[in-house]
Parts: sequence; structure tokens; C-alpha cells
Amino acid sequence: MSEPSEWFVCELRVRYQETDQMGVVYHANYVNWFEIGRTELIREMGVTYRDIEAEGLLLPLIDLQVSFRYPARYDDRIAVYTRIEHFTHTRMTFACEVRRIEDETATLSRRSSDPAGELLVSGSTRHVWVNRQWRPVRLDRAMPRLYAMLRQQ
Amino acid sequence: MSEPSEWFVCELRVRYQETDQMGVVYHANYVNWFEIGRTELIREMGVTYRDIEAEGLLLPLIDLQVSFRYPARYDDRIAVYTRIEHFTHTRMTFACEVRRIEDETATLSRRSSDPAGELLVSGSTRHVWVNRQWRPVRLDRAMPRLYAMLRQQ
Amino acid sequence: MSEPSEWFVCELRVRYQETDQMGVVYHANYVNWFEIGRTELIREMGVTYRDIEAEGLLLPLIDLQVSFRYPARYDDRIAVYTRIEHFTHTRMTFACEVRRIEDETATLSRRSSDPAGELLVSGSTRHVWVNRQWRPVRLDRAMPRLYAMLRQQ
Amino acid sequence: MSEPSEWFVCELRVRYQETDQMGVVYHANYVNWFEIGRTELIREMGVTYRDIEAEGLLLPLIDLQVSFRYPARYDDRIAVYTRIEHFTHTRMTFACEVRRIEDETATLSRRSSDPAGELLVSGSTRHVWVNRQWRPVRLDRAMPRLYAMLRQQ
Repeated sequence: MSEPSEWFVCELRVRYQETDQMGVVYHANYVNWFEIGRTELIREMGVTYRDIEAEGLLLPLIDLQVSFRYPARYDDRIAVYTRIEHFTHTRMTFACEVRRIEDETATLSRRSSDPAGELLVSGSTRHVWVNRQWRPVRLDRAMPRLYAMLRQQ
Repeated sequence: MSEPSEWFVCELRVRYQETDQMGVVYHANYVNWFEIGRTELIREMGVTYRDIEAEGLLLPLIDLQVSFRYPARYDDRIAVYTRIEHFTHTRMTFACEVRRIEDETATLSRRSSDPAGELLVSGSTRHVWVNRQWRPVRLDRAMPRLYAMLRQQ
Repeated sequence: MSEPSEWFVCELRVRYQETDQMGVVYHANYVNWFEIGRTELIREMGVTYRDIEAEGLLLPLIDLQVSFRYPARYDDRIAVYTRIEHFTHTRMTFACEVRRIEDETATLSRRSSDPAGELLVSGSTRHVWVNRQWRPVRLDRAMPRLYAMLRQQ
Repeated sequence: MSEPSEWFVCELRVRYQETDQMGVVYHANYVNWFEIGRTELIREMGVTYRDIEAEGLLLPLIDLQVSFRYPARYDDRIAVYTRIEHFTHTRMTFACEVRRIEDETATLSRRSSDPAGELLVSGSTRHVWVNRQWRPVRLDRAMPRLYAMLRQQ
């Protein structure tokens, strides 16, 4: 893969529990939303992260970077845009943008090169493929079907 | 055991993440604090919940009841009082009181029959002993040492 | 209102963050889901909880009761069924059922008297209407439009 | 301040709720622990973050960077080391190290230049001082007492 994949979008609504007493979303929750974005991107590719774990593979985070621009608020309609920035046999990097969709009735394209909505938070996560003993593994050997899917993105 | 054990206290300070936009602790967090209380009560008895799980036993919740009287706020000093209400070979019931300690310097008795501080939230949790396959087990057979400890409370 | 309203359903997918090391959803998260159910039920009635707060009204919990039957697991498709059990000028009681929908493609009726899916967790929450100073208020005076909506359910 | 302050340590024990089905602490929780570290560092300086908010000042995050080396596990004794990397009239940067303390009985120095325990996760957070309207403010004008404290570190 020579360039990043298209953005894939999934949507969520801000939960009351996710707010804090500043009246905005508590910052650690965006990190959680990034993960929801990755999960849905993988589902879109045709496999679930649940299946991946069932085959004995885990994809823990090794690096996280987040920039906070504007806060999300309770009950906001949120679009989480995720794309694969880069991958190798052993590692993956995802980019993520959290955006607010003001229009409650707008329909978002599932895949696009041009994310909609107001940019609130952006970031990236770097991961390594490991087995249940947390030893690094080569994805192309451990789960060639998934590796082939990644190459097709 | 014919009557409830003494109250055992553990302390915590309200985290920013635990507040919501009402400016108080989000209600589901008290349920989490109840669990911290149970964990520390078990540790006080001389065994850790981690050890119990390592022996293949789990203690999932089957019933939960909570009464909310006053809210806790960010940075409050909180005392979580926990006691064993009742137990059998297969089940346990804990009572819990969440209290605010206004005096930052007061030292609390680890065990007492008379909890200190302002009562905020109280409740009880009922649990059943199960094995890793979530099948009910008898504690006196599965972990007799722990069962003996319970009888000594 | 002489009898409970119909069940209103909203859906969610179990987040990785909501699991614990038992491999199931951590129990306090169901309490959070109950709230999501209430939020969506109120939205369905034609007003948002955000609007209600903007008018200076809060609806804190005073009592919570939960029965845990089977655990939800990561990535499960979950239906949260909520209905109004009872209300007065000053209080409300909601009932909630959390159910697993095995069929990924099934479409659920938004309102029904007969919830679909496997029952995992059920419970009820009792609330009181208060103003920003946490003083009890009468809903029919503080927000008559909402009170009228409740009577129409 | 020409160089970073000493490390200040605060301690916590991993909560069951903080684990996920990988059997380790869910990654977003470290971000929460970083905040607990900052809160306790500020308390150590002689003022509480609660007081700061009461004076109308907020310190939201604008950038976050985290490196994950080893995972923390349920019931681990954790030391959160925090120090001020840099500050200006309008901004602050904190560094944080999350470490596991194997020895349950060891006493940790509250301040040190050499953190104890096994390094699990490290990172930094960058913040900006704002008022209740989220407008940037100069700390030396808005809360000169706190600014003077920072200079004394």
C-alpha cells in the first residue's frame, strides 16, 4: 500500500456519561472513540475484530497521538472518520478524525476522501500484531486472509 | 454467620473523569465504587480477588440495588464502607455505603460498627460463585480456605 | 397514565472498553445503557434531554434496581428496551430490558409490547425532577409541554 | 523555569472496571491516570484543581502523546509520576510515567529525580489556560498566586 486508504465513517451520539463537569466530553473518551472507528473500519473490510481475537491475534496500541481542537458536547451527533495510514507485516497505523455533524438529518458517505462536519479532534494510533502470549507475529503468516484484505484497501 | 460483619472502610478521591455535566459524580460510578469496596474487604480478610480468579473462581453480580441520597462531587474525599450481609455455600450479599468525609485530615477506623461521614449513596449487591465456564460452584469445596475465612468474619 | 407505556427500543454495539477481564461487559455499564435508553425514549417523544436541561430541569436518579441474568459480550448487537412505568408531577419510574439480538440483519420495531431478543439484564430506575439548585420541582409547572407529552404516551 | 521539575508520585491500584477482555488495562485509562497525576501534583504545590476551577480557570488538553510499553493488570500497585516539563503565561506541558511497583510494602518518595518501579506507559500532555467561556487567559494575571507557585517549583 503506497498511500493511505479512504476515510471510513462511523457515527455515534455523545453519551451523558462521557461528559465531565466542564460541560464537555472528557478527553480520554476520544481515545475510546478512535477504537470504535478502527473496529468499524475492520468490520467494513469484511472481518470483525472479534473474529481476529478468536484466531488468537491481538492488536494492542504502542503509540497514541491526539490533537484537541474543539470539544464535543452531550448529545452531539459525532462522525468518527478512520483510515489506515500505513501497514507492514507486523504493524499498523491508523489516522482518526472526530467531527461534529450539525445537521441531524444529513446522510454521510460511508467512504470518502473528504470528511464532512466540523473537525473537533484528530490523531493517530500505532499498533503491533501479537499472539495471546503478547509475542509479535507476522500477520501475513498468522492470518493471511486479513493481510490480503488490507492489501486490497 | 448469623449477623452482618463489621463495616470495612476504604477510601478514594473523586476523579474528574467520574463527574458529568451536572457537576456531580455520574451515577453509574457508585456501582464501580461498590466493587472497589468489595475488593478491599476481601483483601482485608487475607486473600485477594486476583488470587480467587487465579484459582478459577468468579463472583459475578446477580442483583444490584442502589439508593441515591446526595451526590458526590469532584475531588471529594470518599469513604466506601462495605460489609458482608449474608453468605451461603454458593452466594454472597454485600452492603455498601458511600460517605463523604469533610475533614481532610481525619483518620478513619478500618473496621467499625458505626460508619463516619455524610451518607451519600447506599446499596447492596448479590453474587453467585461460578467457575470459568460460568457454572455455579460451592465455595466450601472449590476454595475451602476462603470459605473458612468468611466464617471467621 | 394508568398503565406502563409501550417499550421503545434503541440499539448499540458493545464497545471493547465496556468489557472486563472476565471477558464480558463490566456490570456498571448496563446502568449507563439504561440511561441511553431513557435519553432515546425522551427523544422519541419529541423533546431532547439536552433541551430539558437547557430549561433548567434535571432528572437525577434516586433508586436503581438491576437483575443480571446473562452477560453481554464484546461486539454483541444489543437492544435496549425502555418504557415509562409510572409518573407523577414530581417523579418518574422507567423500566429497562437489555437484550441480545443474534440476527445481525433483523429490523426491530421501534415501539412494541413484546421485546425481541434474549433477555440479559433488566431493571428499573426512579427519578425526581429538580431545578439547577437540586430543589424538587413540579414538572407540570416547570415544563408543561413535556408533562403533556408524558400524558399522551 | 529553565528545566523540568522533579517527579511527583501518586499511587493507585488498578480497578477491575479498568481491565478489558485482553486481561489488561484498557488503553484509554492511562490517559485518565495522567490526569490524576496532574491533579495530585497541583495539590502538592498547595492549591487544588477544584480551587482553580472555582476561580473560573480551566486547563483543557490540546495535545496528548502516549507510548505503551507494557500493560498494567488488575490489582497492580501503580505509581503515577508526573512533572512539569515546561510552562509559559498561557500554557503548560506535563510529562507522565506510569510504573508498576512489585513490592507491596515499599514506600515511595513523594518527590524524586529517579522514578521507581517498572516503566509501563509514558507520555506528555500540553494544555492551555482558558476562562469559563473557553477564551485563552494569561495565568499570571488571572491567578498570580498559582503562577508564582509554578515559578517556585
